[in-house]
Amino acid sequence: MDFSPLRDGGKEPLLIVKIGGNIIDDEEKLSSFLSLFASIEGNKILVHGGGKLATQLASQLGIEQQLINGRRITDAETLKIVTMVYAGYINKNIVAQLQSHNCNAIGLTGVDGNLLQAHKRLLDSPLGDSGIDYGFVGDIDAVNSGLLQNLLEENISMVIAPITHTKEGQLLNTNADTVAQEIAKAMSKIYNVTLVYSFEKSGVLENSEDDTTVIKQIDQESYKDLKQKGVIFAGMIPKLDNAFTALNSGVKKIIIGKAEHIHQLIKGEAGTTIINK
Amino acid sequence: MDFSPLRDGGKEPLLIVKIGGNIIDDEEKLSSFLSLFASIEGNKILVHGGGKLATQLASQLGIEQQLINGRRITDAETLKIVTMVYAGYINKNIVAQLQSHNCNAIGLTGVDGNLLQAHKRLLDSPLGDSGIDYGFVGDIDAVNSGLLQNLLEENISMVIAPITHTKEGQLLNTNADTVAQEIAKAMSKIYNVTLVYSFEKSGVLENSEDDTTVIKQIDQESYKDLKQKGVIFAGMIPKLDNAFTALNSGVKKIIIGKAEHIHQLIKGEAGTTIINK
Repeated sequence: MDFSPLRDGGKEPLLIVKIGGNIIDDEEKLSSFLSLFASIEGNKILVHGGGKLATQLASQLGIEQQLINGRRITDAETLKIVTMVYAGYINKNIVAQLQSHNCNAIGLTGVDGNLLQAHKRLLDSPLGDSGIDYGFVGDIDAVNSGLLQNLLEENISMVIAPITHTKEGQLLNTNADTVAQEIAKAMSKIYNVTLVYSFEKSGVLENSEDDTTVIKQIDQESYKDLKQKGVIFAGMIPKLDNAFTALNSGVKKIIIGKAEHIHQLIKGEAGTTIINK
Repeated sequence: MDFSPLRDGGKEPLLIVKIGGNIIDDEEKLSSFLSLFASIEGNKILVHGGGKLATQLASQLGIEQQLINGRRITDAETLKIVTMVYAGYINKNIVAQLQSHNCNAIGLTGVDGNLLQAHKRLLDSPLGDSGIDYGFVGDIDAVNSGLLQNLLEENISMVIAPITHTKEGQLLNTNADTVAQEIAKAMSKIYNVTLVYSFEKSGVLENSEDDTTVIKQIDQESYKDLKQKGVIFAGMIPKLDNAFTALNSGVKKIIIGKAEHIHQLIKGEAGTTIINK
């Protein structure tokens, strides 16, 4: 199938898909998603998160996971594990599967080609709780969009693991949603970007208990409405706030839905599409 | 410093350096080598092996290493560890350090961009002992030299971990010396290739106990002589046989010596240079 949304100002389309633990931890789901992803024509980038393997490995090695206010602290040992699991095991297995479907992919982290330069999160960062040291966690300063463009022009798809670096030799752990968003924003200067966040549910739901009540489209106005009515609440609010920030930075379209519906999602036949109207 | 051996038939020079466990396991040695490597001008590729970390991790996880005739068998669990350690931890840390020295590098495995396509070693392969199943060990069939050329032309250096793949979704473990040699052979069609094998000794020695007795140059004829006299024996013989095979396949020069002497090695001021005369 062909991924060809409307061209915008002569820009070529680019699809960026972020998948998380609910796909990565399920071998069959991951494998069928990758076969679907491989069959999408055109420019595409896959950003993956972690999944349970890093936590399992840490516990097998007797490394205690430190949590503060429910958020994981990335100490030196955890960073080592995360680098091994995300950049090594998960990334290379995804690339191997894409190659088997004749999708020519390259696995990258933020350190490769200086793709994602970051700084260690500051204690007073608005992204953290004030005064808490999250350890080796990176907030992104710059995206090397030229590198991605060069590779896309060679018909290569990128598979990106959420590890960034300081350019001073230090690797950092970064949230995969943020990685996808920052890449989408940077690539919007060159491409007409659609960003898909895969999710365990079919989209943003009218009734969070009923997977058939997907809200097809949300714009700034209907978002306000849905928040006021309490339809959108809790964890969905920062997700959608981030989506609108990305749209304001030039991303054309954001779609939230199930990875297994990727073909329908990009055709607008499934999931929730978020637009800036 | 500038790496500019004599141009040959209009081909640009390319330096390929292979480092092994004796460098990788020593944080300080690795770090000073990487600073030297970063300062070499021109086209360059670094191939790294494993080191002790994979073995340590396997033992911490209670995974028994199977050895047959002193050679490690790569079972599914070992392959997972090797992928995590080589492609994840070691590769990304090397790239991060090179980036800190303003050497723009990308870490790759054989699966990325289909760089190294391989098959699982056959039971009757001359590379193994007849009838022994080495598990997930790959013998290389094809090198995607075009990918490396494209990246070199963008002034990017590659850092390559010795993981290959079948193009059918299976990752495979491959000897790093072999990876360096196969890449050198393939790249010789496009570049004037110098291949450096880093070694725990200063070069091939007249007296294996005395590190000051480096033989400066070996060609086919002097090699025969040195073997007859028993100066070159045991493990050095397959190493040198491989070197001459690579030279016969178009590699211009092979140098054996200490990684910490990399600048002197490429200037011919240290190590043993093997040439096809």
